[in-house]
Amino acid sequence: MAAHDDPPTPARRGRPGYDRDQVLTVAVTVFNEQGYDATSIADLAAKLGLTKSALYHHFESKSAILALALDDALDALEAVVDEAEAAHTEASERLRSIVRGAVRVLTAKLPSVTLLLRVRGNSEVELAALARRRVFDQRVTAIVREAQREGLIRDDISASVATRLLFGMINSVVEWYRPGGAVDPAELGEDILRVTLDGLQSR
Amino acid sequence: MAAHDDPPTPARRGRPGYDRDQVLTVAVTVFNEQGYDATSIADLAAKLGLTKSALYHHFESKSAILALALDDALDALEAVVDEAEAAHTEASERLRSIVRGAVRVLTAKLPSVTLLLRVRGNSEVELAALARRRVFDQRVTAIVREAQREGLIRDDISASVATRLLFGMINSVVEWYRPGGAVDPAELGEDILRVTLDGLQSR
Repeated sequence: MAAHDDPPTPARRGRPGYDRDQVLTVAVTVFNEQGYDATSIADLAAKLGLTKSALYHHFESKSAILALALDDALDALEAVVDEAEAAHTEASERLRSIVRGAVRVLTAKLPSVTLLLRVRGNSEVELAALARRRVFDQRVTAIVREAQREGLIRDDISASVATRLLFGMINSVVEWYRPGGAVDPAELGEDILRVTLDGLQSR
Repeated sequence: MAAHDDPPTPARRGRPGYDRDQVLTVAVTVFNEQGYDATSIADLAAKLGLTKSALYHHFESKSAILALALDDALDALEAVVDEAEAAHTEASERLRSIVRGAVRVLTAKLPSVTLLLRVRGNSEVELAALARRRVFDQRVTAIVREAQREGLIRDDISASVATRLLFGMINSVVEWYRPGGAVDPAELGEDILRVTLDGLQSR
């Protein structure tokens, strides 16, 4: 243990310099690996090779890092629904566009979407993210319901269960998809459409 | 803090009596709520209102409790594949039987299946459970591949991706299904078959 009144540690040569985005990227990776609640600012500083005060220079708190990562995922997912609504009048086309877009966001922003999907509501920041997820789900459910009224989506299944199952499949991709692996992300979006809209059964 | 050589705590009146299964049920609930790694034997004892030594009377270690809970989930899921293989010669019928059975197990054994799905391989017990999950996945993938050869499942999607997506949807049910709620578990199995085999699109 250091005694009181030690002089400040001199700046180390070769200490890595990070910008805010790089700190965020490392922090999200550590949160996903060891859990947000179990991660301290000291853990993040150690992982980055920074002092705690150098880390506080970038972010005022651990929850500020979480908020930024969750906003990044939610902004992108909400933009997918906004764009689908602007681009297509038929609800079933909006739904196809949302499935493709959600898979695109999930594979491109895998760490922040993974973090979002693990949020359980243990803080104000997490509760706010869960509230935004609920609004997202409600918007997609309304589109599924509209597609049922159009007669293009079967109506012998509840729109809310269908939406949960559809996003259950999409979100499960975070468990096994790895960027640069054998599975092409655009092809994966088409595969999910093939399974969920056309069905696996041969015609 | 108690001093050394204190007399043993006298047995409290009204202390709850638990059998092994009840201890297991409470332990799995606590593991799911606060995470297996973050839960100590002392936490479990406190939750049960037992002393640690009374808890050790039921189970020799925390990992013995985990092993039993994971075996419970895995035994039931493996039995679903065994039964489907015994009952149906057509692979596509085996697949339908496995989807129905997996949803039945998941909804009936929600806590132990939830625990299984969160296992990340941080111990021998977890690694053994992951190995059994991989064998399960391989068996189902082989059945999907056989159904493709039969011409009953479309072959423009890889059998392994199709299996991952199918079980991604099935497993996602642990995130929102609650026993006794509005969604009937048998109907949920049929809904998953409707979405994944027949497809959401109207014909």
